[in-house]
Amino acid sequence: MAGSSYGNLFKVTTWGESHGAGIGAVVDGCPAGIEIDEEFIQSYLDRRKPGQSEFTTKRSEADAVKIMSGVFEGKTTGTPISLVIENTSQISKDYSNIKDVYRPGHADLGFDKKYGFRDYRGGGRSSGRETAGRVAAGAVAMKLLKEYGIEINAYVTQIGDISIDRSAFDLAEAKKNALCMPDKDAAEKASEYLKGLIADKDSSGAMVECVVTGMPVGIGEPVFDKLDARLAAAIMSIGAVKGIEFGDGFDVVSSRGSENNDEFYIDGDKVCKKTNHSGGILGGMSDGADIIFRAAFKPTPSIYQKQNTVNRNGEDIEIEIKGRHDPIIAPRAVVVVETMAAITIADLLLMNKSSKA
Amino acid sequence: MAGSSYGNLFKVTTWGESHGAGIGAVVDGCPAGIEIDEEFIQSYLDRRKPGQSEFTTKRSEADAVKIMSGVFEGKTTGTPISLVIENTSQISKDYSNIKDVYRPGHADLGFDKKYGFRDYRGGGRSSGRETAGRVAAGAVAMKLLKEYGIEINAYVTQIGDISIDRSAFDLAEAKKNALCMPDKDAAEKASEYLKGLIADKDSSGAMVECVVTGMPVGIGEPVFDKLDARLAAAIMSIGAVKGIEFGDGFDVVSSRGSENNDEFYIDGDKVCKKTNHSGGILGGMSDGADIIFRAAFKPTPSIYQKQNTVNRNGEDIEIEIKGRHDPIIAPRAVVVVETMAAITIADLLLMNKSSKA
Amino acid sequence: MAGSSYGNLFKVTTWGESHGAGIGAVVDGCPAGIEIDEEFIQSYLDRRKPGQSEFTTKRSEADAVKIMSGVFEGKTTGTPISLVIENTSQISKDYSNIKDVYRPGHADLGFDKKYGFRDYRGGGRSSGRETAGRVAAGAVAMKLLKEYGIEINAYVTQIGDISIDRSAFDLAEAKKNALCMPDKDAAEKASEYLKGLIADKDSSGAMVECVVTGMPVGIGEPVFDKLDARLAAAIMSIGAVKGIEFGDGFDVVSSRGSENNDEFYIDGDKVCKKTNHSGGILGGMSDGADIIFRAAFKPTPSIYQKQNTVNRNGEDIEIEIKGRHDPIIAPRAVVVVETMAAITIADLLLMNKSSKA
Amino acid sequence: MAGSSYGNLFKVTTWGESHGAGIGAVVDGCPAGIEIDEEFIQSYLDRRKPGQSEFTTKRSEADAVKIMSGVFEGKTTGTPISLVIENTSQISKDYSNIKDVYRPGHADLGFDKKYGFRDYRGGGRSSGRETAGRVAAGAVAMKLLKEYGIEINAYVTQIGDISIDRSAFDLAEAKKNALCMPDKDAAEKASEYLKGLIADKDSSGAMVECVVTGMPVGIGEPVFDKLDARLAAAIMSIGAVKGIEFGDGFDVVSSRGSENNDEFYIDGDKVCKKTNHSGGILGGMSDGADIIFRAAFKPTPSIYQKQNTVNRNGEDIEIEIKGRHDPIIAPRAVVVVETMAAITIADLLLMNKSSKA
Repeated sequence: MAGSSYGNLFKVTTWGESHGAGIGAVVDGCPAGIEIDEEFIQSYLDRRKPGQSEFTTKRSEADAVKIMSGVFEGKTTGTPISLVIENTSQISKDYSNIKDVYRPGHADLGFDKKYGFRDYRGGGRSSGRETAGRVAAGAVAMKLLKEYGIEINAYVTQIGDISIDRSAFDLAEAKKNALCMPDKDAAEKASEYLKGLIADKDSSGAMVECVVTGMPVGIGEPVFDKLDARLAAAIMSIGAVKGIEFGDGFDVVSSRGSENNDEFYIDGDKVCKKTNHSGGILGGMSDGADIIFRAAFKPTPSIYQKQNTVNRNGEDIEIEIKGRHDPIIAPRAVVVVETMAAITIADLLLMNKSSKA
Repeated sequence: MAGSSYGNLFKVTTWGESHGAGIGAVVDGCPAGIEIDEEFIQSYLDRRKPGQSEFTTKRSEADAVKIMSGVFEGKTTGTPISLVIENTSQISKDYSNIKDVYRPGHADLGFDKKYGFRDYRGGGRSSGRETAGRVAAGAVAMKLLKEYGIEINAYVTQIGDISIDRSAFDLAEAKKNALCMPDKDAAEKASEYLKGLIADKDSSGAMVECVVTGMPVGIGEPVFDKLDARLAAAIMSIGAVKGIEFGDGFDVVSSRGSENNDEFYIDGDKVCKKTNHSGGILGGMSDGADIIFRAAFKPTPSIYQKQNTVNRNGEDIEIEIKGRHDPIIAPRAVVVVETMAAITIADLLLMNKSSKA
Repeated sequence: MAGSSYGNLFKVTTWGESHGAGIGAVVDGCPAGIEIDEEFIQSYLDRRKPGQSEFTTKRSEADAVKIMSGVFEGKTTGTPISLVIENTSQISKDYSNIKDVYRPGHADLGFDKKYGFRDYRGGGRSSGRETAGRVAAGAVAMKLLKEYGIEINAYVTQIGDISIDRSAFDLAEAKKNALCMPDKDAAEKASEYLKGLIADKDSSGAMVECVVTGMPVGIGEPVFDKLDARLAAAIMSIGAVKGIEFGDGFDVVSSRGSENNDEFYIDGDKVCKKTNHSGGILGGMSDGADIIFRAAFKPTPSIYQKQNTVNRNGEDIEIEIKGRHDPIIAPRAVVVVETMAAITIADLLLMNKSSKA
Repeated sequence: MAGSSYGNLFKVTTWGESHGAGIGAVVDGCPAGIEIDEEFIQSYLDRRKPGQSEFTTKRSEADAVKIMSGVFEGKTTGTPISLVIENTSQISKDYSNIKDVYRPGHADLGFDKKYGFRDYRGGGRSSGRETAGRVAAGAVAMKLLKEYGIEINAYVTQIGDISIDRSAFDLAEAKKNALCMPDKDAAEKASEYLKGLIADKDSSGAMVECVVTGMPVGIGEPVFDKLDARLAAAIMSIGAVKGIEFGDGFDVVSSRGSENNDEFYIDGDKVCKKTNHSGGILGGMSDGADIIFRAAFKPTPSIYQKQNTVNRNGEDIEIEIKGRHDPIIAPRAVVVVETMAAITIADLLLMNKSSKA
């Protein structure tokens, strides 16, 4: 596998499988002098930790991060920051029932064809657990962005057919409820919906929205490293994401230029926009407005219903998946979306330092 | 600007502005021995050439490509292929009216803030004309993919509120009509709709769908270089794209695991899927089914209506855009979508050669 | 710091400081199916471990490597291999005497100017200890190369003015004596020379030669990723190396074309060379002969003599360096040279897989 | 071929063969606002142009560069700068005599084995002509460095056994004589020596030295992207270079720490060094002193003597090389060394902008 590194200047390399010795990340290229400690990073990891509500797996990982290098006397030194999270909850169990099976909705088939065999324990490298390394690295990016006045918040706006009421939008609420929805009523309805799905041995998809505030104008490189192209890659690289849209997104298809263009105006000495159909990005560069994007998460593929599938020997079989699986992926992925956005923006912010001599 | 190169092994570097001396691309890493000539590449460029219908700008560029290196006796040599298209239609005109203006929906503001000034003639590097280099390079990728039995076709499925009728789907039709829609009736309705918009000095968004057939299983690198992540970056890097989705895309939000999972079955010695909700990608790797994705194109931002905006001096102004602008971007972008997908898949196909020793 | 990753397809990222929590490396892109275990990697680390002779520091690090990911049931899985070596011998001591000092021959000044401050404990990231991560990662490369029949051996050919006698060359001897010289007599003379230097509180430079056997023809990319260019970067990136030469090296300056050209001849169905002035590389690609290069290592800069220098406050001062320092760097660096060569060749070998379609 | 791009932020991609349609380079990542024009770039190209003395091939290429993009109103815009040099002197001749031959000292064998066939006309991509693209791109880097007060000068210090007299060193002289030697007497002796070699149908190696002045402290990334590692790769990637050394170079082998360490002292508010054994680089970062390195160029492999070699059919044969070949490579390579150094330093200078937040 290549492709375990991401970013040009703020470069993150992740490693680790679900049931190996641990999970981790190396952050290379973080500027020196940023205050950071394990506690801060841990606060991000805790948001994706399992076992926190009835909608997340009971598997309880401490997910305790250790800074192995790159920080001295509480500050980044400019050298690579190695973050290690030991796996503590790998129950030594019998995987013989899934060892040779290609589970529907999973990457088992691809892994076997690509590499000739696979680490079948708990999904190996394609486990959601892989994102722990991203979150740890992204917490560092988040701290760097704070120095530039940039903040990033993601939350769940839809689960099944239950959407938030935009007029009741409350970001603080999203930090409180188990489903990370910025609307208490919607969260309650979604909660009922999920309970029904659990009873049905089923799972649900969801929509995650992310807002970046405080962006300076001109971040993003105009051709292949456009800000939206890079964010799209970053977010689509999170397992289970099947689509991403910026600003008005897919609604632009039925829109007109006269509706979709955001008019500029001057406020004091600042260029502002009357609307934000663009989602804060024009021509691949930030336009000064908030960046807004939405990602579609598919339903957890591991469901407890009987399913038809095949095995490595080329036989049609029936399987019933055991183990610990969330009925919905999105709430724990909210912090992954935030941190992947942070890594991307940190990288492009550093790239931008050489746009002028 | 960094970010004018794309790909790890099949690496494309594009250059050129709308009104400079020319546009071009360098393809580094194309394997040796692929038969290619200017005629083949030209056939792709001709599909994005302006001046071909009432819905494309009257600006007539010959867009004649010249192979400057990397091909010997009709075959790629393994050395970089330089493709140059001279600009022939740069009308020497007076740009003083847009020189200092930040056009709504355009990247003018970003360029000025990022670089301190900009080449204001015809959009410079953010002009749609930049994609000519991509198309030329992508034609080479397309030829490489043919050797592996992979084909890629894109077409327009929706313009405004007019969608194709899936039951009337006809790919051959998409190659014939000016709007690249695989449904003659829809194309005719959309044509009427666009004529109305032209009369209104307005423009329309559209949806482009792309299908990749013949994919082997296991292409794509499982973490940051997932096949869908890389395709998302490639397609989002095309100007005017505001969203991308794979397979069921945003519909997964309201779907259930039991609906969304594609069951595998054995057909002869092949692993097949009963459905293709995944759009041919699981865990970031091809799953053997057709790859299907859709991209949302925003309406052309250059419209002839009077618009409010600002200029470099920080003044609120009114502008009326002159010049030659398409009322819709998508039909000419269809071949750009195909070729960017081709470059991406070619790159990941070569990457995959080192997955096993 | 960027630049902690090396390689395109076989990509190694190292992290860790001399006196932090540990040292390590992530190997991304190693093909699946290579047999590897901690014992094999450890055997390489043990060769650079301190405390093994009178000429290496008494600091005793266990340097025990742990494979954290990427290996399953004794084989590489294709996913990133994380290798961690915990630091166990960081004596908690008072660094106040060197904290603000710019030691002659060291990178202290550069670190301070570049990052604003530095981790002054034991050289931080510029410590020779950084190479432990490289060696661990390089052991994996070495195992991969063995599958292709490629072997790499380095040894010390000169210390001070004492050179090996080429007619007495004995590779097995180099594996036995503390100075890694393939000539017992030379090793004994050099040993006496070094004892004298220790008494003088001084240190010595040395020459390391490296030979790669079993190379297929055509490895290396003809322009910027020439095999010799990449090896030069890899070896020059080892601290203390001040020069590198291939084949006849600097002797080519006074040579003639008629002497320097290696004539080809046919032996069975193989193209061979009568001589190997080129050192196995022509036009940046392997030519089928053994690859031979030499690297010049400077004397250890940490010497116990009183030296004039300056501190952070801009004052001229005198220092006497304390601590544990080898009087010669090269013998422990031999395995670093071998493994950096292995990583480079592994990378270019994988690159070469896409030279033809 | 991959590997036709060089640099992370200041990224140069070259293309073109000796006898194709042209040669060129794309510079991506040059900061905006640098004044540049074709005349300035041409002045660099003219220094490597053939036909300028009795020691360079009579082939007369105009080598006229054209800026195709990235420069507007006399300044770099931040977008990629495409530089094209059309080949005008490709004599259409019969290559059948070398088509299937593996010339001694050339890359013919490697190309054939790597790619299956090769463009045999004039060396194709491995021709010295490939460096024209580098020189054009490097002239841009040189202009950028001037903004930072950095200058780079290379010259020839030795040809055969004839070395310059350091006490007579005169940089201005190196710009005047045909052999680029900073010592008129040495140049004259070397000139006689070369005339003798021409009569003997032979060729000579040479040494090129390069000095970089005005470097700020701390440029270079401390591990794999060390300033000397990157310079070594850049210079070794020039065809015919067989070795590189920095500062005292290979002399460090027989040196002692007490001799080799450069003592620091304070001069006003500046940290200076009493000596410069390090060649201006410590721990992979610039130390404020001049950067000094030397590269060994092998004798031109194309000599007119009869040579034994083999052909593609596996036959032992005799060849006599025809055509136009310099009896020495170094004088025309001096500007290639300077510009490759400039590209490298420009890249690391931009990298350094993100060392602190």
